Parts: sequence; C-alpha cells; structure tokens
Amino acid sequence: MAFSAADHQFMALALQLAANGRFTSDPNPNVGAVIVQQGEVVGSGYHHQAGQGHAEVYALAEAGNKARGATCYVTLEPCSHYGRTPPCAEALIAAGISRVVIAMPDPNPLVAGKGVTLLQQAGVAVSSGLMHAEARALNRGFLSAMERQRPWLTLKLAASIDGRTALANGQSQWLTSPEARADVQLCRAQSSAILSTASTVLADSARLNVRQLTTGRQITTLQNGQLRQPLRVILDRRQQLTGSEPLFSLPGPILLCISPGQTTRKMPAQVQQQAIPLAADAYFDLTALLYTLAAAQVRSIWVEAGAMLAGALLQQQLVDEFILYQAPVLLGPQAKALALLPELTELAQARRFEFTDVSRLGPDIRLTATLTT
Amino acid sequence: MAFSAADHQFMALALQLAANGRFTSDPNPNVGAVIVQQGEVVGSGYHHQAGQGHAEVYALAEAGNKARGATCYVTLEPCSHYGRTPPCAEALIAAGISRVVIAMPDPNPLVAGKGVTLLQQAGVAVSSGLMHAEARALNRGFLSAMERQRPWLTLKLAASIDGRTALANGQSQWLTSPEARADVQLCRAQSSAILSTASTVLADSARLNVRQLTTGRQITTLQNGQLRQPLRVILDRRQQLTGSEPLFSLPGPILLCISPGQTTRKMPAQVQQQAIPLAADAYFDLTALLYTLAAAQVRSIWVEAGAMLAGALLQQQLVDEFILYQAPVLLGPQAKALALLPELTELAQARRFEFTDVSRLGPDIRLTATLTT
Repeated sequence: MAFSAADHQFMALALQLAANGRFTSDPNPNVGAVIVQQGEVVGSGYHHQAGQGHAEVYALAEAGNKARGATCYVTLEPCSHYGRTPPCAEALIAAGISRVVIAMPDPNPLVAGKGVTLLQQAGVAVSSGLMHAEARALNRGFLSAMERQRPWLTLKLAASIDGRTALANGQSQWLTSPEARADVQLCRAQSSAILSTASTVLADSARLNVRQLTTGRQITTLQNGQLRQPLRVILDRRQQLTGSEPLFSLPGPILLCISPGQTTRKMPAQVQQQAIPLAADAYFDLTALLYTLAAAQVRSIWVEAGAMLAGALLQQQLVDEFILYQAPVLLGPQAKALALLPELTELAQARRFEFTDVSRLGPDIRLTATLTT
Repeated sequence: MAFSAADHQFMALALQLAANGRFTSDPNPNVGAVIVQQGEVVGSGYHHQAGQGHAEVYALAEAGNKARGATCYVTLEPCSHYGRTPPCAEALIAAGISRVVIAMPDPNPLVAGKGVTLLQQAGVAVSSGLMHAEARALNRGFLSAMERQRPWLTLKLAASIDGRTALANGQSQWLTSPEARADVQLCRAQSSAILSTASTVLADSARLNVRQLTTGRQITTLQNGQLRQPLRVILDRRQQLTGSEPLFSLPGPILLCISPGQTTRKMPAQVQQQAIPLAADAYFDLTALLYTLAAAQVRSIWVEAGAMLAGALLQQQLVDEFILYQAPVLLGPQAKALALLPELTELAQARRFEFTDVSRLGPDIRLTATLTT
C-alpha cells in the first residue's frame, strides 16, 4: 500500500492531535483523527479523557456535511463495539466518509480488525499501517497492557556523574536541577501509576503526586480542571506507613502493597490495601505485582525508588526503559549506588542497554535507555 | 572595532586552516592565515610542525605579487622575533600587505603586542580581536602554558552508566566501543603528553601511544610520514616498571617519574627518569609535576589512569576538563569506582562541573565537563 506525501502530512497531524491526550486519556489510548475534503482539513479531534467522545466523534462533528465523500485519517482502528460511546466505525459510515486511513490496528485481540471489516462492508476504502511505528510509540503503555498483559515500566534514576544517588548519610536533595525535576513531573503525569516503596516515602517525605509546572510546558488537566493523579503504588512489606505521611494528605488513589497474611490497617479513604505474593527471596514477587496492576487497567508505571527496588526490577528484566538524570557533580565512592545488582565476574555478563535519547535539561543530562533484546 | 561579514568569513577560514595542524604543531600553537585581494582568497596556509614555516609564510608564498595591497587574516598575532624562522610581521610588510586582521594577541608576554607595533609602524592597518574566543579554544594548551605556566589537563574516564570503570576483579576490556576508543586516539594525538601510572601500565598492558585510525577521520602525520607521539609520562613511585613492558617497545619519548632519592634503573634509550617531589601524603606532588612538565614545553596533558590518580587530580583541582565515555551497561555496586574522593557530609560540598558537550559515539555517550569557577 503506497501512501502519498499528503497522506503522511495528515496522519502526522492526527498523531500530533492524539498526543494532546497524553496527560488525561489514561487508561484509554491516545487517538487523533483528521477529516480531509479535497485536500483541506474540515474536521479534527482527539480523545481527551475516558467517558468523553472518541477522536472521530469530534472530527465528524466539526466536519458536519463536509464529511460526505471525505477521507478520515485516524491513528487507531475505529472501534466497532458499543462501549461508553457508540462505535466510531458506524459513525464514519453514517457520515458518508469514503476513505479511512489507519495508522495501527486495535491491539485488543477481541476487536482487532472488526472496525476495518465493518467499514469495508459498507463500501468504505480502508488503508492501514501509515506511520505505524509512530502510532505505537504514542501508546506503548496501552499496547504493553494489551499485548503482554503487563504495564510498560520506566525506571527513573537520578545520579551524579560517578553514578551515586545520595551521600552516604542519605542526603540527596537537591542533586538534580529544577529543569530535571520539571521533566519528572511531565513523566509522572503521563503514567498510569507511580511505583515506590515505604522506605522512599519515609526517607524523602515523597508525595509522588503530579504538580502543575510553574514555567514552560503545562500539564493538561481533566475536564473538571484538575490534574489527573496517577495511582500511587507503594510497596510496604513491613507495614511501616501509618497513613499520616505527607503523600496521604494529597488527592489521588493509593494502592498500598502489603505482605500476604498481614491485616489491613486503618488508612485514609483513598487508600486501598492489597496483599502481593512474596518471591523466594522474601521480597515482593514483582512479576505478580505487574500482572495485578495490568488487571487493574494500569498501562504504564513510572518507578521512583531506591537502589534495592531498582536493582530487583533490573535483575528480573522488568524494566522496559530507564531514564537517568545526571547532575554535573562527583560524590565519591562512599556515596550511595544507583542500583543493587549482584557482583559480576565477566564483563560479558553485564546487562546491556541501548541509549535511545540523550538530552540536556538545564545543567543536567537526561539519558534514556532500553534493554537490548 | 566593527568587523564585516566578509571579515568573519575569512577569519573562520583561517581558523579552519589552523586546526589542520592540531595533531602535529605541538609544542607550537595552531595558526592559520588567509590573504584576500579584492574579496578573493589569493593565499592561505597553516603551521604544520615546529621548524617548518609559519602560516603567514605559506600564505604569502601562494599569494606572490597579489599580496600587494591585500588583507591578511591571521589567527595569532604575527611574530616579531627571529626564532627558527624570520619574523612574519616583517614578511607581511615586505610583501606589501596593507591590512592585517588578528584573532588573538601572542600570549607570550615577552613578545605580545610587538608584532602589531611593527606592522603599525610600517603603515599597515591592524585590527585585533575578531573571533577571539574561537582562536583561544584552538590553542588552550599553548595558552595555559603561557598564561598559567601549567599545561591544560584533560582527564579521560570510561565507565558504565552506574559510574564503574571495571569489575571488582579488575576486568575492564572492552567496556567501551571501538568508536569511543577511536575518539581516545584522536584526543591522545592532540595532546603534548599522556599521563598515566605504573599500575595502569601493568594492569592493562597499556601502550599509551597514538595509533592511526583504520576508519573515519585520519590523524595527520608529521612531514616524515610518522605520527607525532606525545610524551608518555608514567608515575612510577615504587619503581615497579622494568623497561620490558609493551609501552617501552614502541617509538616515542617516555618520562618515568620516580621518587626523590631513588637511583635510576637501566631503561631503553627513549626513557628519561626524573625524580618528582612527594607531597605530604607521600604521593607525588602533582602541582610540582605539572610545573615541571610545563617547563619541558608540555602544553596539554591527556590523563588515562585509575581511580586514585583521577581522584587526586580532581581533589587538587588540577583537572581543567574531563571526558567521560559512558557505556550502556550496568556493573553493580561491587564494581570499581570512577574516582577516589573523600566522603562528603553535605551535597553543597560536592565538586560541581558544567557539561560543555554531549555526544554519541556508536553505542556510547561522551560527556565533556569543565570545573565551574
């Protein structure tokens, strides 16, 4: 299937629109749609928030009668089922759209291909796969949950040039710059959940919520004007948290993971307590945790924790990507290590990554890396 | 003094020419010259190697009669004294050059300004300071030696993402990629000297010489077709080296630094043995070492050594710049630290740097940083 330059241009616009929903659409995917009549955009839209209209609905509403005979570019296969909204494939047919260009099929195996079939049966020309990789990148959390039944996991690390996260006495505020911390807010705000531990909550008085930026890019709010607060998942194996720590006084749901057999404690209303199985090493079974979270519609996880959880996730190959904020400072060998990992005797045993991005954030550097396969 | 766009263009060309000498001109500075007659380049040149002609000489020879009434752009103030070649200021006057544009004055306090005076006395119009910063950057080693009586010192580090240089058992080959190792060759080849220790020579069978690259950029050779070999300075406080290690079988001078009072041992002909004073901690007095090297016309030093020398140089603030090659791998907390530094109790005590460059080299990343003042 050959696509024209104009096709690319309109799909790029649809992808750009889709990205507008990145702070709010969770647990739904990011989707954008553009309707083009004789080379002109006559309607466009994106999915903002679960329960609100799909991208195609907004685009069709804007296009009105001009949708008849037009082409619709949509970043995800139009839905064919009655969910919280009527099926978009039917809406496109009813509006008289004559051609639909799709970036990627619906990853839900129960409905994949059904939207395309519905359109084709109604005589609509359908082309698929335009800017497929870009559409997947925009929804990697949603895709991970659908395809692997596991959320996409990003491990956040912050260290000195010599790979140290804190002084030997624990002091770590503020190792990185305001620019790096603003970037952390943007990353948190795009995640379904933030994973941390009771130790981190206690040591850093961590609140782990999303806060609006005071400068630069703003985080899009929900329709009610509030920021979407990702689920805060806190590993509290020894039930160290009392419910009076600062994170409990902020809005947003909290999942407190306790050990099997522990009795739940009195906690604020937004806190859910759930036992997670332990692994052979008496630490939480992290794979089980991820499957549990996926089942609760968690598409993507942003991990902010200490060297122990970081090491365990890395060791068990559960890290899909890590982001390391490097501050231009040296802390020396007594300072705290980045991730606890077993000793190696051969360099060939070392876990290899691939740097996928390198950026400068104020005085700091941000390295993004994925595990090589 | 206002300079025109054409002035900038011709000086940029002169700077580009000057850089051609970066692998060969040591201990002389890098200098380029361009002669322009009615908007056209009629002659150009650069200084290739000590004992050979200065940049102006080549440019004047190429320009011939067209030099009369022309403008000469030169990156360093033309010399006024009889050294290994006759003074360039006189040559410019004799050729009838009517205007000279200079990027930076001669940093040698004994001759600074004399070239300009000579030209002006002969009625030549002189403008100085065009692209001054760029000209200084090209000669930072020469400038450091002239202005601080100390070579410019660059510390090379290579580590994993978690700041480890080798496994606990010492294994470190090959942590970084062929691309990073080629970059190291380019850096070595631009330095007056390479500083290392007997420990590194013994542990890594380090040769510390310059080797021609097999792909990509080539290292310019001397007129005799050979690569210029930087002085290899090896700290051998306990006289561990025997003279039979691999580095001694390669061409190029070696300075073996021993402790005061030690008797010199029989060594290959290219080896000079010199006692360096010890500091209070019984390690070499590194400041004394640098002044000694500066007096021996060492303009710039590239340090390849272990965590102890790296830590000592950092601690004593003798590092002007460091280059860290980061391999996309995690080695864990048992692996070897980047630099031995004393324990800190406050983050504010940490030595702060400024990242001046971030580059990707194959799978690796190269961070360049300077000490903030």
